[in-house]
Amino acid sequence: MIIVHSLAASKELKKSTVINLNGVKIGGKEIVVMAGPCAVESKKQIVETAKAVKNAGAKVLRGGVFKPRTSPYSFQGLGKKGLEYLKKAKEETGLPVVTEVTDSKTVKLVSKYCDILQIGSRNMQNFSLLKEVSRINKPVLLKRGMSATLNELLNSAEYILSGGNHRVILCERGIRTFETYTKNTLDLNVVPAAKELTHLPIIVDPSHGTGRSSLVSSMSKAAIAAGADGLIIEVHPKPKHALSDGQQALTLEQFSALMQNLKKTAKSVGRTI
Amino acid sequence: MIIVHSLAASKELKKSTVINLNGVKIGGKEIVVMAGPCAVESKKQIVETAKAVKNAGAKVLRGGVFKPRTSPYSFQGLGKKGLEYLKKAKEETGLPVVTEVTDSKTVKLVSKYCDILQIGSRNMQNFSLLKEVSRINKPVLLKRGMSATLNELLNSAEYILSGGNHRVILCERGIRTFETYTKNTLDLNVVPAAKELTHLPIIVDPSHGTGRSSLVSSMSKAAIAAGADGLIIEVHPKPKHALSDGQQALTLEQFSALMQNLKKTAKSVGRTI
Amino acid sequence: MIIVHSLAASKELKKSTVINLNGVKIGGKEIVVMAGPCAVESKKQIVETAKAVKNAGAKVLRGGVFKPRTSPYSFQGLGKKGLEYLKKAKEETGLPVVTEVTDSKTVKLVSKYCDILQIGSRNMQNFSLLKEVSRINKPVLLKRGMSATLNELLNSAEYILSGGNHRVILCERGIRTFETYTKNTLDLNVVPAAKELTHLPIIVDPSHGTGRSSLVSSMSKAAIAAGADGLIIEVHPKPKHALSDGQQALTLEQFSALMQNLKKTAKSVGRTI
Amino acid sequence: MIIVHSLAASKELKKSTVINLNGVKIGGKEIVVMAGPCAVESKKQIVETAKAVKNAGAKVLRGGVFKPRTSPYSFQGLGKKGLEYLKKAKEETGLPVVTEVTDSKTVKLVSKYCDILQIGSRNMQNFSLLKEVSRINKPVLLKRGMSATLNELLNSAEYILSGGNHRVILCERGIRTFETYTKNTLDLNVVPAAKELTHLPIIVDPSHGTGRSSLVSSMSKAAIAAGADGLIIEVHPKPKHALSDGQQALTLEQFSALMQNLKKTAKSVGRTI
Repeated sequence: MIIVHSLAASKELKKSTVINLNGVKIGGKEIVVMAGPCAVESKKQIVETAKAVKNAGAKVLRGGVFKPRTSPYSFQGLGKKGLEYLKKAKEETGLPVVTEVTDSKTVKLVSKYCDILQIGSRNMQNFSLLKEVSRINKPVLLKRGMSATLNELLNSAEYILSGGNHRVILCERGIRTFETYTKNTLDLNVVPAAKELTHLPIIVDPSHGTGRSSLVSSMSKAAIAAGADGLIIEVHPKPKHALSDGQQALTLEQFSALMQNLKKTAKSVGRTI
Repeated sequence: MIIVHSLAASKELKKSTVINLNGVKIGGKEIVVMAGPCAVESKKQIVETAKAVKNAGAKVLRGGVFKPRTSPYSFQGLGKKGLEYLKKAKEETGLPVVTEVTDSKTVKLVSKYCDILQIGSRNMQNFSLLKEVSRINKPVLLKRGMSATLNELLNSAEYILSGGNHRVILCERGIRTFETYTKNTLDLNVVPAAKELTHLPIIVDPSHGTGRSSLVSSMSKAAIAAGADGLIIEVHPKPKHALSDGQQALTLEQFSALMQNLKKTAKSVGRTI
Repeated sequence: MIIVHSLAASKELKKSTVINLNGVKIGGKEIVVMAGPCAVESKKQIVETAKAVKNAGAKVLRGGVFKPRTSPYSFQGLGKKGLEYLKKAKEETGLPVVTEVTDSKTVKLVSKYCDILQIGSRNMQNFSLLKEVSRINKPVLLKRGMSATLNELLNSAEYILSGGNHRVILCERGIRTFETYTKNTLDLNVVPAAKELTHLPIIVDPSHGTGRSSLVSSMSKAAIAAGADGLIIEVHPKPKHALSDGQQALTLEQFSALMQNLKKTAKSVGRTI
Repeated sequence: MIIVHSLAASKELKKSTVINLNGVKIGGKEIVVMAGPCAVESKKQIVETAKAVKNAGAKVLRGGVFKPRTSPYSFQGLGKKGLEYLKKAKEETGLPVVTEVTDSKTVKLVSKYCDILQIGSRNMQNFSLLKEVSRINKPVLLKRGMSATLNELLNSAEYILSGGNHRVILCERGIRTFETYTKNTLDLNVVPAAKELTHLPIIVDPSHGTGRSSLVSSMSKAAIAAGADGLIIEVHPKPKHALSDGQQALTLEQFSALMQNLKKTAKSVGRTI
């Protein structure tokens, strides 16, 4: 039996938290889909993608500008210039924007440009960063670490909540297992488990979770059936030319078709999309 | 990239295998639910459960009589007497029966009483047993090992196929991870992944996969949404008094309610239940 | 805190067990080295290896004749013919012989030819096989499963002890982790941990444990320093031509040099080799 | 086969790196032991411990002042006051000091007080922090992440090397596995593996690596036998009253006895301590 010391995140305190982002409600009846490229690569790329995912039904635009990469010699993201491009895409579409923040020093900068700040899986236990985002007035998308337990994820959320920021969205993005066919193993058990332990909304990232675009559709449906409050999906105009993680990105057409399909799954569990 | 040497199991050979069991088709449009107690405990218990799960819509009765237990001092199952009780339950309900076989010495005995022989996760790489069941004329339910990769599961299936038994049903039943809230981590990624690599049907065991009855309903829906061909679910008239794994068994009423719910999920992916 | 229900294996019952095999004492002050090829391939190969490892100081000859292989199309071992070759090697050198038994049906046959029966890692929880070897009058070398805990290993030993066979030798042979440089991760922590919990001797297999011959020497020393009662090492006259696991086998010369080196390590912990 | 893109860390570039810290040479023939409490708790505690570990033969004092803790409600360390106490302990004993840095904002502060900056396992892929310490003129002790591969560890080292700081000491501190008897599983395979791939020195932390003080002695010997260039060991005057991780700390007397014992192990591999 697990003991959750996470008082502020605990289900005992509150039934559910709905995060309202200019009308986009995360944690309510509607399933919220966030979509966009792994990395912002150019103004054209992000604006084109933003328009397409909006047309398909996405409610939030995703795009990385500070990329945590295993090797220092891999593409590290466009940095501040990428933030400008995200802002442009937001202006053109009205979509709120989520991007990853990787350093306590850049939290303020990123929060000027973006609507949701993402803490990536490698930083789930970067407690300095968690404390920093606990002091800003923006929702935080907190991704589960690659080998973290649910209890550890909730304790990391507690760092943000106890610091004064109550708008935390949990995100399952795949854990490390021995399987080699998939890059990670998307763990959907954590969705109903989180619903038993916490009032915070939880969304699912089937793109990183599987690492294979061909599995994204099935696992998106499964995530909704399991009770997820939303999805975050990688979409790229030309996945084969993506500067990072192209093998897991959907094309604009694939994403549009997926969104149509997900309506049926949402309906089967009494929700909309 | 994985290389599947599993010629006989390969998708390249065949699109899909449908296993016909006196009219119950596993791997077809209909999702097949197998249900029953972890262990056969008495004639009354198994007959009562068989009637209830049949009424609720289950198509196959499950019940263990040779129980692989971590400790030699735990309940080891009723053995041959349990087989007699399963036969009785089959006579009363007409439901075909699946039970686990744990020793090459008892394969013939078990195949006289049962319609499907289960190879448990601890025996997925018990190659002597795999060779033995490759020579009988009954379908085999092959459970994935607790830390096995999909490639290893397919290679184990290949032992059965290459020995002459072409009726193999794969089963995902949860893998070992670092999570402690659930007993195992049900890995649904393996469902669409198996559909890419093999023509064999694949079913899901959300009871062992999570180890918590409260999570079975959500994960059953998710399994169907992910593309599973069936489910195998633990049901017990009185879970609290079960001789093994009571914490993961549904009551007869809970199972009946779940079956109603699953119809909507099946419909959402163009299938029936 | 772990609770060990393994009464017969428990340290509380007994300080230590020394298994006497015609003068070779396993679990005593002397560290016992078992050596030989992964698989018996020919009479010449096993006899040549037996002579060489004996000269180098090995006290037991190892060689597999029933090989558990992931794929049914890999070399499965010479079977009964291999047992004959092992017998010949024993006659020529006087070395007692250890080989793996994989099926309850062949336990009696193998026990006619061999001095120690090995239960491989894939069969650590093949409870039928454990019960079978609990009824024979030969020591059993019980290998830890690839993802098994120490508690599970001790419970498997308990199956053998409670069945009446008190001569069980535990063996650490590497666990599955995320590391890719090594085939497995040799877990030496389990050596002093086992010494705290059980009176049974424990030996270490650095060949399977690392999967790389270049690491065998360092890990052999480390195993002895950690308190292991023995080692089981793969040695092959021509590793590059081995029918299985050649990349982890030492040449006869490498093994001989290693044995010289290990004397210093044994001495540093007050033991001999 | 692993491909190491880590050019600056690669063995191909250089045979070995010896880091000279005012005469203390890490990576040379002498095995360097770093010792001290998990957390600095008071001036008295750290000064008393420093004197004792110096007398016993330790060459570097360890002590945490910024503690990364799973829960925000656990003791977080003394912060700057702790740095003052470490400085005091250094003045009294002459021992160089190593402490963990957890935030890019405090790197400069910590480098004023300490001789080696530690990057903890949770921050192994905190790339902003790695870049920050790549620009300072102090050696960095880089701990392997709890589920990281050797390749990932070397890539993280590469962030520091490629930024201009060539004095990186690798540290194995236990990985997460399924074992429950130990807190982590100390992975000694990584020691000889690192020696094959990189010229950087590597030390071992048997305290975090096992989480049990009773296993520290055996695993320290094993680490040296495996080829480690040093050890980092938790020592506390009163482990039962420690504010964090007391169950893995040695008493001053235990540490002193251990150091005597390790001399024999060091000698057996041609080194000194």
